[in-house]
Amino acid sequence: MNLYQERLALLRDVMRENGIDFFMIPTADYHQSEYVADFFKTREFYSGFTGSNGTLLVSQDFAGLWTDGRYFIQAERELEGSGIVLMRMADPGVPDIGTYLSGHMPEGGVLGFDGRCVCAREGMELSALLAPKHVRLKTDLDPAEGIWQDRPALPCTKVFLLDETEYAGETVSSKLGRLRAELKKNGADCFVTGRLDEIMWLFNIRANDVECNPVALSYAVVTAECQALFLQRDSVTQELEEFAHRSGITLCAYEEILPFLRGMDQPEKVLYDAAGLSYSLYAAVLERAGEEKTVQKDSPLQQMKAVKNPVEIRNIRSCYIEDSAALCRFIYRITRRAKKAAENAEQIPAPLLDEEGRPVTEYTAAMELDALRAQISDFVELSFPTIAGYGPNAAMMHYEADEENAAPLYAQGMYLVDSGGQYLRGTTDVTRTFALGPVTDEMKKHFTLTAVGNLQLQSAVFLSGCTGKNVDILSREPLWQIGIDYKCGTGHGIGYLLNVHEGPQNIRWRFAPGQKEAVLEEGMIVSDEPGVYLEGQYGIRIETILLVTKICENGDGTFLGFEPLTFVPIDRNLIDPAYLTPQTLRVLNEYHRMTWEKISPFLSEEEQEWLREQTAPIAFPGGV
Amino acid sequence: MNLYQERLALLRDVMRENGIDFFMIPTADYHQSEYVADFFKTREFYSGFTGSNGTLLVSQDFAGLWTDGRYFIQAERELEGSGIVLMRMADPGVPDIGTYLSGHMPEGGVLGFDGRCVCAREGMELSALLAPKHVRLKTDLDPAEGIWQDRPALPCTKVFLLDETEYAGETVSSKLGRLRAELKKNGADCFVTGRLDEIMWLFNIRANDVECNPVALSYAVVTAECQALFLQRDSVTQELEEFAHRSGITLCAYEEILPFLRGMDQPEKVLYDAAGLSYSLYAAVLERAGEEKTVQKDSPLQQMKAVKNPVEIRNIRSCYIEDSAALCRFIYRITRRAKKAAENAEQIPAPLLDEEGRPVTEYTAAMELDALRAQISDFVELSFPTIAGYGPNAAMMHYEADEENAAPLYAQGMYLVDSGGQYLRGTTDVTRTFALGPVTDEMKKHFTLTAVGNLQLQSAVFLSGCTGKNVDILSREPLWQIGIDYKCGTGHGIGYLLNVHEGPQNIRWRFAPGQKEAVLEEGMIVSDEPGVYLEGQYGIRIETILLVTKICENGDGTFLGFEPLTFVPIDRNLIDPAYLTPQTLRVLNEYHRMTWEKISPFLSEEEQEWLREQTAPIAFPGGV
Repeated sequence: MNLYQERLALLRDVMRENGIDFFMIPTADYHQSEYVADFFKTREFYSGFTGSNGTLLVSQDFAGLWTDGRYFIQAERELEGSGIVLMRMADPGVPDIGTYLSGHMPEGGVLGFDGRCVCAREGMELSALLAPKHVRLKTDLDPAEGIWQDRPALPCTKVFLLDETEYAGETVSSKLGRLRAELKKNGADCFVTGRLDEIMWLFNIRANDVECNPVALSYAVVTAECQALFLQRDSVTQELEEFAHRSGITLCAYEEILPFLRGMDQPEKVLYDAAGLSYSLYAAVLERAGEEKTVQKDSPLQQMKAVKNPVEIRNIRSCYIEDSAALCRFIYRITRRAKKAAENAEQIPAPLLDEEGRPVTEYTAAMELDALRAQISDFVELSFPTIAGYGPNAAMMHYEADEENAAPLYAQGMYLVDSGGQYLRGTTDVTRTFALGPVTDEMKKHFTLTAVGNLQLQSAVFLSGCTGKNVDILSREPLWQIGIDYKCGTGHGIGYLLNVHEGPQNIRWRFAPGQKEAVLEEGMIVSDEPGVYLEGQYGIRIETILLVTKICENGDGTFLGFEPLTFVPIDRNLIDPAYLTPQTLRVLNEYHRMTWEKISPFLSEEEQEWLREQTAPIAFPGGV
Repeated sequence: MNLYQERLALLRDVMRENGIDFFMIPTADYHQSEYVADFFKTREFYSGFTGSNGTLLVSQDFAGLWTDGRYFIQAERELEGSGIVLMRMADPGVPDIGTYLSGHMPEGGVLGFDGRCVCAREGMELSALLAPKHVRLKTDLDPAEGIWQDRPALPCTKVFLLDETEYAGETVSSKLGRLRAELKKNGADCFVTGRLDEIMWLFNIRANDVECNPVALSYAVVTAECQALFLQRDSVTQELEEFAHRSGITLCAYEEILPFLRGMDQPEKVLYDAAGLSYSLYAAVLERAGEEKTVQKDSPLQQMKAVKNPVEIRNIRSCYIEDSAALCRFIYRITRRAKKAAENAEQIPAPLLDEEGRPVTEYTAAMELDALRAQISDFVELSFPTIAGYGPNAAMMHYEADEENAAPLYAQGMYLVDSGGQYLRGTTDVTRTFALGPVTDEMKKHFTLTAVGNLQLQSAVFLSGCTGKNVDILSREPLWQIGIDYKCGTGHGIGYLLNVHEGPQNIRWRFAPGQKEAVLEEGMIVSDEPGVYLEGQYGIRIETILLVTKICENGDGTFLGFEPLTFVPIDRNLIDPAYLTPQTLRVLNEYHRMTWEKISPFLSEEEQEWLREQTAPIAFPGGV
């Protein structure tokens, strides 16, 4: 028996003791976070599979791991010898977990999962799906408990306050007032949430419990009388206690959330978001309030948080300029080395060397960029692991180079860098693709059409009421015209010193069930990131972050548009003006003019010289 | 008492006798048709209001007419002296009918309406809205019965067959097979509909009961065993009887529909479309089958009918060319007169005169155009009353000139003509706006940006799965960029020798509740009609009809695009090339090249000379 077979055998013992037919172990913490701490890697503990998306399903005679196309090769390798069947999600003939369970669950059987790690919506759906078979759920069992001996501790960092005047821009009591007004609109007087980013936003606090997401493990309950914040004891500082006292926030222990919900005064009506609450919390709410006294709704905090206030916007603008300057410096350094490598070439392609003569790889370059960001005064951490892909690696949208397998950079082809930071002044996210040397005409064509899409969206004017679905085609159409699509959304919202992906807004051409189509509102920020991904060849992505702003108001309505927040040149070496329109060229030249104006003060003289060249106006070839 | 007060007094007697507190009289026939025959103008009979949209609500001490902004001035004039209150829809403080009834209906009261004239959805909504007040509906009373003495007869024209090989392109049995397959997908074995266009389509028949819509008043019921077609006895010809016999269609009398539904064999499950069935029919279905044996769904026929088959497409292509040629001839004649008027001008602006020296008005011009269309060999009737507006009149989207009030045409400014015909080969709809003489720079700017939008949509390439919401912005964005919006959709579907507006597809940027957002599919046809409407000044609309076609299929998906069906020049006298992009100019020049190629064979030598000038390539001004 290999290690994983042994571990599964122990789990099966526990299942037998508890009368559980199938146990489901997803990749999730108690808060539906995008990234999970090591404590929560139970699925990895039992399967050996390390990918970011995967659900393990175990019965006495079956173990299957469901994961998506990004991970098929890796999962196959990592599952070898474990006896776990790889269930290739979305492949023809492969059922999803619900369908599989419907088929294989015995009549009157028991499905186990840790109710804290599954969101209310998914739990309810599974429950409804299996109801015809009279399946019972057992959700109070942690499958790692007693078996995972060297399990890491639950992360627990100190909570810090976000200054209301300087950074948050709105007091907690004002936010609570707006939340209660939203509750009232829905006839509710109580709100329960387990979404970490919205809890941080509501209480103007942050921490470091989840990598890249400056949040603390927490829950919140807001009733007519009180606002209760549930935190791990060790994350609470004296400063926070004083702040809570001043602000009328009741601090409770993290593990007290379930007893609290079960024992609270009967509310008029509880509003909850089935995607922002674990199944366990949902069950406790239902137990206390009863079905007719609960209302399922998108959390009002999502919308409130997404519309940035003037203080946040001021901070974001200045933060994005410094963040852009760091990326400019990085691009300058890398392209300078590429130029030098080409000049001194003894071999073709010529490898890039750093100032100490060591080869530059995707990994070392990413480290350098991360270090440049860390020099910014209010830097907190990265907003996601830097994606820096050279050549064919860039065709993988979520590629992350590791030290061992990183590709070395050569003075040819394209290099894609997608990166961002967490600062007291906001959260950044930016992608640029640039040439390290000679490129093909096809690369230029694809890059230029990507740029046209990016600039068309950036310069859009649209009526208030439009959603991301209305405007997505502006970014996608130039590539659709040549029969190319990128298999992802065009843009996402971004938090303020919070998650790099936040809703409710989203720029995409279609919405899968459960994805929200939200109206774009003044003060929201969105990414604008079209791309071309040719497997085994190369990847292009140009990502600029945009702020939704008001353009004008007249008898026809309120017209909105975008203000760019990111200022990093779009590589002119990759532009073929033949594929530009006069309009987009005008937008590009204006964008480069602003980039020079805003970024040059942060650069050295030689960096400035490079930026001046990079941002000089491009002439239109003329004619039709 | 004026005439309408007298009539209302008679209605109130009937209401008292029947214990009815409020009687609602909408503008509708039994089939939710866009245009209604005179027989159905009961609301006009009681109120004197002649507009196309309005609902009268009457109680013993109140009578109110709800209508929309287009008709406020007209309604005020027409209602004078009737004692009927004008309820201005969507004005602040004006409740809609449901809200008004909620407030004024007595507890346990009775609402009357002719259940045949209200669709199932609306009836159900009113019923639900008034349920808290325990209101009963009385729906079996025709409010005109016994009171409207000289009521016109129900229209009743002869049904004719559409040849399957030459025109319909699919046999009735094939259509029925597809319909039954769709029913099966929904677990249903019975379908009931009162939508005239889908009944005509299903049975490959047409008639002339509704102006501009070549349909017969009818109902259809399709069960596992039979397909029953309900027609007025006098509309049935021997040819139809033979066809019905051959095709296994059961012909029933129009007035037998309710008894039939009440007496039919209990079906497994009935599928109905709450927007395609009257409340009376719905109630009969419910009575027979019971709630759990009915399923509400968009009618499968809507989708089937919207995707044109190869025979229909072949016919539509040829029909649109001849229809376009008629409009070209008309524009040539009018603009030639405008030129002559300007040359011989004794006054400015110079009035246009016809060949007999009579002044040309909006009305006489429309008559001329209608006559040119009627010369086409398979012409049946107009597809809607021609909208021909000169100067400020064109700013009214649905303007229809009448003989008395029609404006005369002068050799200056712009003239908008929106028109179409019904032919055995299809239904057309086209709008062109053209100059009759000098125009302002602003007119040119607005016209050119309208053309850019029109051409951008026409040349779009988009992934299969896109809806009208995805592509709408391509047509609207050039105008949005200068803060102008047109207050209507960009495009609608069009029937085949059927209604000029048909669903389910629609090109618009937002969808009101009840409006469908349907995927654009290969074989659908849609209009592309952006415009500028400046009240009191001028109106611009450019409408070309497009066929959805496949462009290519590859690993990224199936890409679709549009093939133009309409070929009428876009007036170069109104184009300012400074507002064109090289791309749209390329599309425009190519469109004009095709227009010359396809239309010139139908024109006389001097008409050809005009068309050659109009379709000559336009040069790009160059530079950025």
